[in-house]
Amino acid sequence: MMHLILADSELELVPQAIQGHPAIVKHAKMRKKKPSRILLDSTYHHQAIRSKYAAEAERRGRPDIVHFFLMNAQESLLNYEGKLRVYVHTRNNDVIRISPETRLPKSYNRFVGLMEHVFQNKYVPDKENPLLTLEKMSLRALVDEIGNKAVVLSEKGKKVNLKEYDIPEDITFIIGGFPSGDFLSNVNFADEIVSIYDGTLMAWVAAYEVIARYENLYL
Amino acid sequence: MMHLILADSELELVPQAIQGHPAIVKHAKMRKKKPSRILLDSTYHHQAIRSKYAAEAERRGRPDIVHFFLMNAQESLLNYEGKLRVYVHTRNNDVIRISPETRLPKSYNRFVGLMEHVFQNKYVPDKENPLLTLEKMSLRALVDEIGNKAVVLSEKGKKVNLKEYDIPEDITFIIGGFPSGDFLSNVNFADEIVSIYDGTLMAWVAAYEVIARYENLYL
Repeated sequence: MMHLILADSELELVPQAIQGHPAIVKHAKMRKKKPSRILLDSTYHHQAIRSKYAAEAERRGRPDIVHFFLMNAQESLLNYEGKLRVYVHTRNNDVIRISPETRLPKSYNRFVGLMEHVFQNKYVPDKENPLLTLEKMSLRALVDEIGNKAVVLSEKGKKVNLKEYDIPEDITFIIGGFPSGDFLSNVNFADEIVSIYDGTLMAWVAAYEVIARYENLYL
Repeated sequence: MMHLILADSELELVPQAIQGHPAIVKHAKMRKKKPSRILLDSTYHHQAIRSKYAAEAERRGRPDIVHFFLMNAQESLLNYEGKLRVYVHTRNNDVIRISPETRLPKSYNRFVGLMEHVFQNKYVPDKENPLLTLEKMSLRALVDEIGNKAVVLSEKGKKVNLKEYDIPEDITFIIGGFPSGDFLSNVNFADEIVSIYDGTLMAWVAAYEVIARYENLYL
């Protein structure tokens, strides 16, 4: 089984410090929700983010990255064949587990609504048969729980050619869920940190690169 | 070089017959555009589509599929290495060419705005140095112009294992850009019609499957 974690992803509800910002208030009103219950989204909240989090303004509020990642991972041939488990870990150490049979909304707005629901209720659709669950957990605790060899993909890692890279059948890959910068979590606990390309790859592309390589070996 | 065509994709401006439908008028007003200048989008226009195009209501108005496809193709390692050319062909025989260096908006709403701009102006950002161009052209004319061996991916095609399938270095792959049903274009002119999986794959997943296989052979 391959486990795939999107780590330190920029998925969060609007932080308290900017819930009163005019851009947030306006957007929340349009969406008929409280500011505390909507996802932070740089497309709409960039000014608000900059007002309090200037140093992180180019990375925060990116549900779109999570959406693209999940559209690739959940709909992958590997997942259809039952050999993939997918997790979204966030900057605030929320871990969302997505059960393999879950088909997520393709509409971005519906996806955002679903994630807001997950943050609020922790279990979707319900606690008895959840397709998505959310709990507080560090990246390291999640990786330890899975128990596989853990490999982080990072531009700063050791250069490897995926074609020649040894991947055991039980493996956990960790991919950064942020548009730029570095992991917020300490990832030095991992068994290896590797770079699969001389340059930055989008998180969802890196995901399908390792998925396709694993399929080539084990399907 | 690999050429990749999303064919018969469900990308179109709102057709004249439903421009007066209340749901369309309301949505266009909210977007501050004329109904004739907004993309058909099943997320917002499903009722309107059903009112006139009942038989096609489950397939029309899917810019999201084009968006996911382009996020994978344009951001692929293969494209970064300069060995991929990407085209979006639509149900109305519009062909959009995307130059390899084009980075498209990750925000769905911005992507929709960009596509509307392409339909209106044909060249984006301008005719002298276009990143995107639109012209009227059939799928077959596009494939003939490229001149490579052309392979259609289709559930109805001959079953092949991509791992063992012979892919020449100059190749054109054609993938359906619709959620269900069959190609509207006649695709029998293609050199081969193949099925790479026992089941339906999302267009963007099928795209990365062939991209990854090509990378494995030629990068």
